Amino acid sequence: MLLYVCVKGHFMVYSKRDKLTYFKMVLQILKMSFCQVSPAAERLRYILSEDDDMPTPTLFTEMDTLQREGDELEWKESARWVKFEEKVEEGGERWSKPHVSTLSLHSLFELRTCLQTGTVLLDLEGYSLPQIVGEIQIEEGMTSPDLREKISFVLLRRHRHQTKKPIHRSLADIGKSSSSTSEYPCLCCVRSSRSRWTRTSHAQSRSMNDIADTPSTDQLKNKFMKKIPRDAEASNVLVGEVDFLNKPFVAFVRLAQATTLGGLTEVPVPTRFLFILLGPQGRAKSYNEIGRAIATLMVDDLFSDVAYKARDREDLIAGIDEFLDEVIVLPPGEWDPKIRIEPPKKVTSADKRKSVFSLNELGQMNGTAGGAGGLTEDEEMPAQHELGEELAFTGRFCGGLYLDIKRKLPWIPSDFYEGFHIQSISAVLFIYLGCITNAITFGGLLGDATDNYQCTHYIMFIYKYVCVCCILTSLRPCIHCASLTSYFQRNNSIDYMELRLWIGIHSCLQCFVLVATDASYIIKYMTRFTEEGFSSLISFIFISDAIKKMVGSFKYYPINTDFKPDYVTTYKCECLAPDPSEFTPWLRETEGNCPAEGSVATSGLWGSLTLDWSQLSKKECLKYGGSLVGKSCKFVPDLALMSFILFFGTYSMTVSLKKFKFSRYFPTKLRKLISDFSIFMSIMTFVGLDMLMGLKTPKLIVPTEFKPTRPDRGWLVMPFGKNPWWIYLASFVPALLVTILIFMDQQISAVIVNRKENKLKKGCGYHLDLFWVGVLMAACSFMGLPWYVAATVISIAHIDSLKMESESSAPGEQPQFLGVREQRVTGILVFALTGVSIFLAPVLKFIPMPVLYGVFLYMGVASLSGIQFWDRIKLYMMPSKHQPDYSYLRHVPLRRVHLFTLIQIMCLAVLWILKSTFLAIIFPVMILGLMVVRKMLDMVFSRHDLAWLDDLLPEKEKKKKDDDKKKGKGKEKEKKKSKADDSEEEVRNSIFCCPL
Amino acid sequence: MLLYVCVKGHFMVYSKRDKLTYFKMVLQILKMSFCQVSPAAERLRYILSEDDDMPTPTLFTEMDTLQREGDELEWKESARWVKFEEKVEEGGERWSKPHVSTLSLHSLFELRTCLQTGTVLLDLEGYSLPQIVGEIQIEEGMTSPDLREKISFVLLRRHRHQTKKPIHRSLADIGKSSSSTSEYPCLCCVRSSRSRWTRTSHAQSRSMNDIADTPSTDQLKNKFMKKIPRDAEASNVLVGEVDFLNKPFVAFVRLAQATTLGGLTEVPVPTRFLFILLGPQGRAKSYNEIGRAIATLMVDDLFSDVAYKARDREDLIAGIDEFLDEVIVLPPGEWDPKIRIEPPKKVTSADKRKSVFSLNELGQMNGTAGGAGGLTEDEEMPAQHELGEELAFTGRFCGGLYLDIKRKLPWIPSDFYEGFHIQSISAVLFIYLGCITNAITFGGLLGDATDNYQCTHYIMFIYKYVCVCCILTSLRPCIHCASLTSYFQRNNSIDYMELRLWIGIHSCLQCFVLVATDASYIIKYMTRFTEEGFSSLISFIFISDAIKKMVGSFKYYPINTDFKPDYVTTYKCECLAPDPSEFTPWLRETEGNCPAEGSVATSGLWGSLTLDWSQLSKKECLKYGGSLVGKSCKFVPDLALMSFILFFGTYSMTVSLKKFKFSRYFPTKLRKLISDFSIFMSIMTFVGLDMLMGLKTPKLIVPTEFKPTRPDRGWLVMPFGKNPWWIYLASFVPALLVTILIFMDQQISAVIVNRKENKLKKGCGYHLDLFWVGVLMAACSFMGLPWYVAATVISIAHIDSLKMESESSAPGEQPQFLGVREQRVTGILVFALTGVSIFLAPVLKFIPMPVLYGVFLYMGVASLSGIQFWDRIKLYMMPSKHQPDYSYLRHVPLRRVHLFTLIQIMCLAVLWILKSTFLAIIFPVMILGLMVVRKMLDMVFSRHDLAWLDDLLPEKEKKKKDDDKKKGKGKEKEKKKSKADDSEEEVRNSIFCCPL
Repeated sequence: MLLYVCVKGHFMVYSKRDKLTYFKMVLQILKMSFCQVSPAAERLRYILSEDDDMPTPTLFTEMDTLQREGDELEWKESARWVKFEEKVEEGGERWSKPHVSTLSLHSLFELRTCLQTGTVLLDLEGYSLPQIVGEIQIEEGMTSPDLREKISFVLLRRHRHQTKKPIHRSLADIGKSSSSTSEYPCLCCVRSSRSRWTRTSHAQSRSMNDIADTPSTDQLKNKFMKKIPRDAEASNVLVGEVDFLNKPFVAFVRLAQATTLGGLTEVPVPTRFLFILLGPQGRAKSYNEIGRAIATLMVDDLFSDVAYKARDREDLIAGIDEFLDEVIVLPPGEWDPKIRIEPPKKVTSADKRKSVFSLNELGQMNGTAGGAGGLTEDEEMPAQHELGEELAFTGRFCGGLYLDIKRKLPWIPSDFYEGFHIQSISAVLFIYLGCITNAITFGGLLGDATDNYQCTHYIMFIYKYVCVCCILTSLRPCIHCASLTSYFQRNNSIDYMELRLWIGIHSCLQCFVLVATDASYIIKYMTRFTEEGFSSLISFIFISDAIKKMVGSFKYYPINTDFKPDYVTTYKCECLAPDPSEFTPWLRETEGNCPAEGSVATSGLWGSLTLDWSQLSKKECLKYGGSLVGKSCKFVPDLALMSFILFFGTYSMTVSLKKFKFSRYFPTKLRKLISDFSIFMSIMTFVGLDMLMGLKTPKLIVPTEFKPTRPDRGWLVMPFGKNPWWIYLASFVPALLVTILIFMDQQISAVIVNRKENKLKKGCGYHLDLFWVGVLMAACSFMGLPWYVAATVISIAHIDSLKMESESSAPGEQPQFLGVREQRVTGILVFALTGVSIFLAPVLKFIPMPVLYGVFLYMGVASLSGIQFWDRIKLYMMPSKHQPDYSYLRHVPLRRVHLFTLIQIMCLAVLWILKSTFLAIIFPVMILGLMVVRKMLDMVFSRHDLAWLDDLLPEKEKKKKDDDKKKGKGKEKEKKKSKADDSEEEVRNSIFCCPL
Repeated sequence: MLLYVCVKGHFMVYSKRDKLTYFKMVLQILKMSFCQVSPAAERLRYILSEDDDMPTPTLFTEMDTLQREGDELEWKESARWVKFEEKVEEGGERWSKPHVSTLSLHSLFELRTCLQTGTVLLDLEGYSLPQIVGEIQIEEGMTSPDLREKISFVLLRRHRHQTKKPIHRSLADIGKSSSSTSEYPCLCCVRSSRSRWTRTSHAQSRSMNDIADTPSTDQLKNKFMKKIPRDAEASNVLVGEVDFLNKPFVAFVRLAQATTLGGLTEVPVPTRFLFILLGPQGRAKSYNEIGRAIATLMVDDLFSDVAYKARDREDLIAGIDEFLDEVIVLPPGEWDPKIRIEPPKKVTSADKRKSVFSLNELGQMNGTAGGAGGLTEDEEMPAQHELGEELAFTGRFCGGLYLDIKRKLPWIPSDFYEGFHIQSISAVLFIYLGCITNAITFGGLLGDATDNYQCTHYIMFIYKYVCVCCILTSLRPCIHCASLTSYFQRNNSIDYMELRLWIGIHSCLQCFVLVATDASYIIKYMTRFTEEGFSSLISFIFISDAIKKMVGSFKYYPINTDFKPDYVTTYKCECLAPDPSEFTPWLRETEGNCPAEGSVATSGLWGSLTLDWSQLSKKECLKYGGSLVGKSCKFVPDLALMSFILFFGTYSMTVSLKKFKFSRYFPTKLRKLISDFSIFMSIMTFVGLDMLMGLKTPKLIVPTEFKPTRPDRGWLVMPFGKNPWWIYLASFVPALLVTILIFMDQQISAVIVNRKENKLKKGCGYHLDLFWVGVLMAACSFMGLPWYVAATVISIAHIDSLKMESESSAPGEQPQFLGVREQRVTGILVFALTGVSIFLAPVLKFIPMPVLYGVFLYMGVASLSGIQFWDRIKLYMMPSKHQPDYSYLRHVPLRRVHLFTLIQIMCLAVLWILKSTFLAIIFPVMILGLMVVRKMLDMVFSRHDLAWLDDLLPEKEKKKKDDDKKKGKGKEKEKKKSKADDSEEEVRNSIFCCPL
């Protein structure tokens, strides 16, 4: 086979064996042009820096090839590019998946030669294709009118674009396709029918111009338009082989104004660039490759800029050279060119590439293309840990609070109108169910701990604090406090509610002091280590609670494992009357209450009473002093196992549905919807299953009335009267503990929510939040309600359920995480719903508790899985060659990573053990302990390792921080220090914040 | 920053902005060498074709860079290549995952220049590094002794290889690393300590040569050696920057004999090639890239051949040019060079690439690199459907059988010794459990259908036929026959066993006729369409059986959904005596049997009898005519739900464990083990759970005795005596149905097992198998045992559990499927175990039936998932852009694919419906029907589409096949036709066969 090459306009023929000679030839030509030009990079720098303020439009590139359909010639779309290549699969009659264009070096060099030798028309005033073709021919200096006509004829043939054929056509096609046994798409047809060709072009010549001037309806209706940016312009690549040429006809045209050239382009986008390559027959594949090369170049950010701004041919060549210089090369033995490479998650931004030209000496760029193997990585260091200026120390009274309010105010309108979105509904449902389960579970615990002074429907009532960014939950470790305090008062005859009120008042005041003194700034010394420790702990609590509850139901509904179906006759449970001697007085006493009263009288003493007692239910029997006798008394059939099925089913269905987003089934939108509503759908499914089975599984019971939990307490707690006066002062001490707890719990949750990964845009308000917590503290105390603070796990779940991703613009581009739908609507709705749960009771009573435990388990596991700490734990079980390519693994030795993780695990274990003992009260101090451990890590790990595994502690104020930790609570004192360095710039940059 | 370039030995300095100028420069130099050489491809062709019979050894390439560790210079391993690149991650101190080397075009051109200008020594007689260095310096013409000494000093520094540091060192490292706060791996150290450099090299100079002559123990112990082929040779790339050079020192050395140069290489592999690049300071990154480029070239199959056979420098350059020509280029804007590309599943084989040079004109090679976007795909057609010569029609009496035996005999020894492998154990366990479950389930069905004439422990007894490739199972559709026949005889007072014996005898004879006439050759008209239909049907039967059984247990153990835990007292089940009038005679009659006899006498008539009756179990109660009264009589608690948990748990755990193979945890071998034993482990887990719960779930009950199922029948069935004489002849007709059934069932299973994908190597024996089935048929009939035939699903499971994959040789290379461990040991063991199951009863009785149903479900689902039909069904639910890149989707329009699938679904639905009716008897005929449908598809689909979606029917004998189908059973007649074309070559090529 011979190779035809368009070199310098001369037509050269090489045999296959001369391929390398040809390659050398191209290089020679590159050289020939070398002396005539100024350095190419210089050129590019000049062009690109010219008017950088006006960005060039995005280019949509379409490549059409000349094909013979039946007896007619036509241009058939063969590929298109927005950013990545989509190819028409001839056999499959559909678009391929978007993929990275893999080119051959050869085609790039050939393209370079083509541009050097062909016609280049820049800023042509073109209004229609025939006129443009004419202009090209004039520029080319084409003299033969016959040739001119032929070229025009070919170029003006109709363009057929790839549009989806509907499925229902298939039956109609049956007859057609079976008759024509071979339907291979044939480029070769053109070649094989050389004789017919002439006939077609002359005898059958219908019109010289098949192309309409206005866009067709097909074009306008094309849904693909959505994927193309609004300001986009088109570049059309026309490639084909014809039999009347003996040297290639090449033209590159840039129009002065982007013009819609009729049906040239698949979508109604005006054409700016036109690349035409017509060549002699036999090299169709090579022409195709050249077409793909120019198309790929046109969508390259850098080259398209060059193409827009090029002053002459040499600028274009320089653009190709620059492209070649940055190109990434895969060795032929290690990669199969047939594999389509999926678009990467991220590519180097064009700006960075362009900056090489506009800025001076950004660094040695050579060789970065091989970065994967080079030494580039170690040059970069992870971004510094910074918490934004919200946490800076203002040094003024209420300075932080003032700035918080100032920062928040402008966002308030958008906090509401941005909340109206379909995603919010799923978020509200999800979080509502989480909250209510939480409330009921913890409410139950709290009720147990406080002799029912505070119970579920109180929690419901208060559960609606929406001013701060986080969802608030009943102060969990406080249950321990409560139970201890309660114990204390029971033994010392001190009134619990009054004591609690005073603790609340003190705490509230202490919070206000903390707010006024900007004490929240201490949070900035909290690194990933501390955050991870805290949030894993909370997640573990969720998981262990869910499992405990589940195991509990096996105890609550014991299974009779000895049950033998055949001996069903021996299983019963009878209520036996108490000893007759005690019986008579009792009978008199409770006669009125006896349910089966009428039937008692007639029968004999013993037998009749047995009959009578047998009518009693288990509870009644025990109430009236009867005893339960029988093999089945202790057991409850089915409920435990059913609960387990509901629990595990809900959990695993939620997990699977969440993962469904990454499956291949159904359109992306539907999948996303399913994934968003996964929890809701699983709850519905298993509620349905439960209803279908009709078993009496424990249900979510919501109070239907609104009243104080105990008759002996009213709506308000009176501050004075029941306790001695010294209690009012002494309660300062427990209040201090509570304050620390509140402060740490609230602020750590806020920090976790405000993580940089979440890309929150509206400013955050640590001080404002704490202020409101303080206010609420006092209010709750007066009403005898539980205290509230941010709920880490639910807050994280809230954030997760509101994440936004970009609608992927170019096909194949990965959707980018844009940020969180920050608004207050969902929060308000959740709490409003929680509040009216009392009225929702008829609906909610169908939800079995095990289903909610399943949701709990899911929340715990899901919030764990986002934590780097958890990823690092998994590394223990992976051989190093299978480990994922985490950036810290590239930079920190594995054993150091493992050591770091081990320390974290040990810390957590210690915390867990402490939490389970009476030391639970000093939980907040333990978190301070975590920060101390983190400080000591500075001695074990190098700063380099810590920078990758954790964040660095703020260097400058290191000493001060140590002091903080030693003093622990004396936050007021630090006010004097470090006043100097903090300025009032906090408001300026608030990228790093939180409100929902 | 400046660029230093090693061009023509001259030292050139370019500023960053001149990068492109430099690029042009390189091109110019390329050109300069152009005129002096003969065409490069010509060169390569000449070299490579020289002595092609001796393959070149595999090259292991190691790249070491010069680094300063403490005060000493040393060579540190920075990357290595077997086939793919593994990089030392400086920070992580570990090997990266193997990845495709991404190079920059720049470095390749620089390398080319380096080779053109540097020293090239081919076939140097080298025995030690100092001597080699000396030779290079002589060749280089280096005069200054000072420079020579310095270069020698640098090159002879110690080599430090990347070996894993054990984890336990990490604690010892703590003190060390915390003291040195910055441990960035520093190449820059060398630069920054220029003053110290001089001191080191002279004052501290310890020895001129740090390199030992013998391999160190570290080298010998290196486990990586396993990954390198035995005959491998090493190429060492040494790259570094030094301060005493002002132009690069480049050398490429090929030794005449591969020599172990001490500690130069990580593994004790003799070095053949040496590439040295020492250059002036400041361009370390660029040197690195050049080093990576030559290393990548050295492991390229084509270039390494060139390197071995090169006669001079120009040959090497030609090799690079050829490499460049084949290179795949990724555009910089679409790919981030930092992403490490995972090795592909398959790469173009080197032979194919080399063949371009040794063969003449294999086709236009240009542009194939861009094949993903080119027009290449449509050129290839799927491989033709061919079943090997085993199925050819010999035309001689017993010709096929003779050839089968001839083919099988040589393999018999290996059939045994190849069976001893750990994988066999898991396969035996898995298949054994599958078989026994199958046997028990079907045995139960068969027992029901035949009034217990044939029952489970008979199935056990016979379940051990190992001569054929497939696992045999009780003839499933035959249950229908059996039940019909049984019904027939019951109503007509014909002895069932004797009738069955005669049917068996006739069938056996008919099978022998089929064997003798090579009738099995008809199977070759069975395409994927038929196979898939059949095997999906069988899979569906498995799935639906498992689910039916599971649902059945909800019926068998009904759940009391009205149960209220509080009213436990009202639930009982009492056995009430029948009406007293009937009672007295009964009492007399059964007095001896009454279990609670003693307690009856004393009490009064009614009350005492109640007490007495209450002692009876449910069965006894019913037996003695009592009636069960009470709310709990109808219900069995917990068992149904527990069964469900066991069933679903076993299934999903098996699925997860199977998938575990693809997770990242644990070493590959362990993962593979877990995956292989997944079924066994799940069974064990859930048996354990069941034992823990202690519930009376239905267990696997294996007969403990070995005796005929009914007392009225003996071990052997006598052929004469019980039925009238005409029955002996009339049974020919039902026998014909049975024969067709056996034939189709057996042969389709065999074809599925023998699919080309399974890569079976030992010849298959369709005729032999059928012969043995016939023998067995007669034997079983005489003993009154069920008939046996191949079990599709279990056979597929057997094959799957014995698949072998290559131990991946080069890191990153995907393990290839090698074939199936074809042997008879597992088969024999499975049946031996099944036989002795009677003695295993004490162990097996712990296995709950629901666990086995779970295994059933898994087997059904797993055998479905391997079928293309199933993949195509999934396509319905995927939007086309998310569909996997199946090859047929690239070539056949989606709507045609969907249509094809739809037809298949409809066929299956029809089959399923027929199967459920009385027409089940003509099941085999229905499969013939599938073949007819397939034939009709020829009219609906083009041959091109069918070639991709199905296989093409043998063209030549098409007409004959149609006849076959119409006649259906008259197979003997076809013997006369098509005698001519089939030759005796059957034995020669038996790639395509089956025995296990």
